Amino acid sequence: MPTVRDVAERAGVSVATVSFVLNGTKPVTPATRQRVESAVAELGYRRNELARALASRRTRIVALAHPTGEHRFGSSTPDFVTSAGRAARSRGYHLVLWPVDTDGGELRELLGQGLVDGVVLMEVRMEDPRIGVLRTAGTPFALIGRTADPAGLVHVDIDFDRSVAIALDHLQKLGHRDIALVTARSPLPDYGPKVRTRAAYERLCAERGLTPQLYDCDPTAPAGRALVPELVERATAVVLMNEYATFGVLTGLAHAGYVVPRDLSVVAFMSPDMGALADPPLTVLHSPGPDLGRLGVEALIDQLEGTAPTEPALLPYVFEEGRSTARVRA
Amino acid sequence: MPTVRDVAERAGVSVATVSFVLNGTKPVTPATRQRVESAVAELGYRRNELARALASRRTRIVALAHPTGEHRFGSSTPDFVTSAGRAARSRGYHLVLWPVDTDGGELRELLGQGLVDGVVLMEVRMEDPRIGVLRTAGTPFALIGRTADPAGLVHVDIDFDRSVAIALDHLQKLGHRDIALVTARSPLPDYGPKVRTRAAYERLCAERGLTPQLYDCDPTAPAGRALVPELVERATAVVLMNEYATFGVLTGLAHAGYVVPRDLSVVAFMSPDMGALADPPLTVLHSPGPDLGRLGVEALIDQLEGTAPTEPALLPYVFEEGRSTARVRA
Repeated sequence: MPTVRDVAERAGVSVATVSFVLNGTKPVTPATRQRVESAVAELGYRRNELARALASRRTRIVALAHPTGEHRFGSSTPDFVTSAGRAARSRGYHLVLWPVDTDGGELRELLGQGLVDGVVLMEVRMEDPRIGVLRTAGTPFALIGRTADPAGLVHVDIDFDRSVAIALDHLQKLGHRDIALVTARSPLPDYGPKVRTRAAYERLCAERGLTPQLYDCDPTAPAGRALVPELVERATAVVLMNEYATFGVLTGLAHAGYVVPRDLSVVAFMSPDMGALADPPLTVLHSPGPDLGRLGVEALIDQLEGTAPTEPALLPYVFEEGRSTARVRA
Repeated sequence: MPTVRDVAERAGVSVATVSFVLNGTKPVTPATRQRVESAVAELGYRRNELARALASRRTRIVALAHPTGEHRFGSSTPDFVTSAGRAARSRGYHLVLWPVDTDGGELRELLGQGLVDGVVLMEVRMEDPRIGVLRTAGTPFALIGRTADPAGLVHVDIDFDRSVAIALDHLQKLGHRDIALVTARSPLPDYGPKVRTRAAYERLCAERGLTPQLYDCDPTAPAGRALVPELVERATAVVLMNEYATFGVLTGLAHAGYVVPRDLSVVAFMSPDMGALADPPLTVLHSPGPDLGRLGVEALIDQLEGTAPTEPALLPYVFEEGRSTARVRA
């Protein structure tokens, strides 16, 4: 592969002059520019982006740090990651995937390599040790998610308060007052989305004079199925933030002779694609996943480039009515 | 951030000597080494990995090139991408996501930047223009998937012949002879997995004296549902390589009063997790997705490091019996 030295020799100029032409850092005469450009073309020389990065102390590489472990991703994750990749690319950046543990040790190690200009953190916990690691390293970062106290942190997240309110509004308009919430057990301690959803539900129930009925079960169909007797006994509607358990609830209901939505109205936090797999198709609140991936990367790049004061974006889940919710039975 | 120059100054040695110590490229006296190491520690100097990369012409960054467009990923994609990221990391490499078009233009542009040591190509087509782009650029690559003629190409893929044989063996043992195959329409022309699955099915039907019944429909539940009248009329069993349509077939059957597996045995190409969402839980052939992601990255890195002659790996889907297949009715 030809080097900048080869170009300089062929053009009969200094290496510095070649650099001035290629990087536009100093004016050169048109004749010199012409000689350098011809040499570049003749030799098929390609600028080494890493050399440029090194010179500028900017690599235009950003990392998406995601947990390695047992945490089960929701069905919107592929959209999420690919939209983050696309957003980086459209701004002229590369996105590297950093599968790292949640305590920050592996993140610290990777940051020490000096490869990336910044990091987007996924799956943020209420108290997240990775944030201290990023601050110590002096690496710019943005969160997809947020900590218990996100003031001063660049972040984008779901508006869980608003999302739960949308679900309750829909069901209350249909006359329901006995509305259960089912979340998913996760090996991630104090996982933000779950903590916030449960808190929003409890607060809204209190404000609206509803009795909260909170369940938390494994993210599996059998775990959902096991909840059915108690749900039909105590509730007329259920909101599930647990994709796999949702299908178990539906199967359990069908096998016990119950009909959705006649005997139980069901609202699920899942994609419409997945909701359409159920019978009847589910009323869903779907994650703005692709928007979050894109917005998280853009918030980081805005910060790196100082192009805009980044306002935290809080997006609600998007409501889409299916055929799994109906007026409460008299 | 302290530079190598700062270290040299503090230690009272030349920049070259610092480099000899840090990179172990030339022996230095113990006293000199000690001075340099103290200066490194005092200044908190961190080696710039990019500078090393530049020096070695190796970046230890590899790309996972995946399509940007409308192609719908299967449910195993998240496992796939994260396992590829983990495999890269465990070998000391970074994995960048490159969302690129399928005609190779964007890939050519990215390769020109000199960022990566090699590329893993996903979602390979039977004739794939990206391969010519990689060859022209002289960039090492590995395929997850394979072209029509993959001889000489480092690749890992699913053994579609073996996978279809496993499905047919299972159903034939249960007495079925009228076995339909349903694949998914894709905007990717000549998409390898589909082409190979259909070809394997036709060849095996011919060898076994079965009459092929081939269907191709959109990857949606309604498209699957629309197939039900013809399936129950013509087949006693169906193999579906179309996750979303599978659920439509099940709903359509239930609504028309048919019972699975009594009236139709169903084998689905999908994850056991997803198969467990159905009622009854489905007999599945599940993608060795995580293994493929890992093996694709390892095949590339083996090639980069010259550590092993890489044999193409062909892995079958993994059979897992559910309750959706039964002996054919007399």
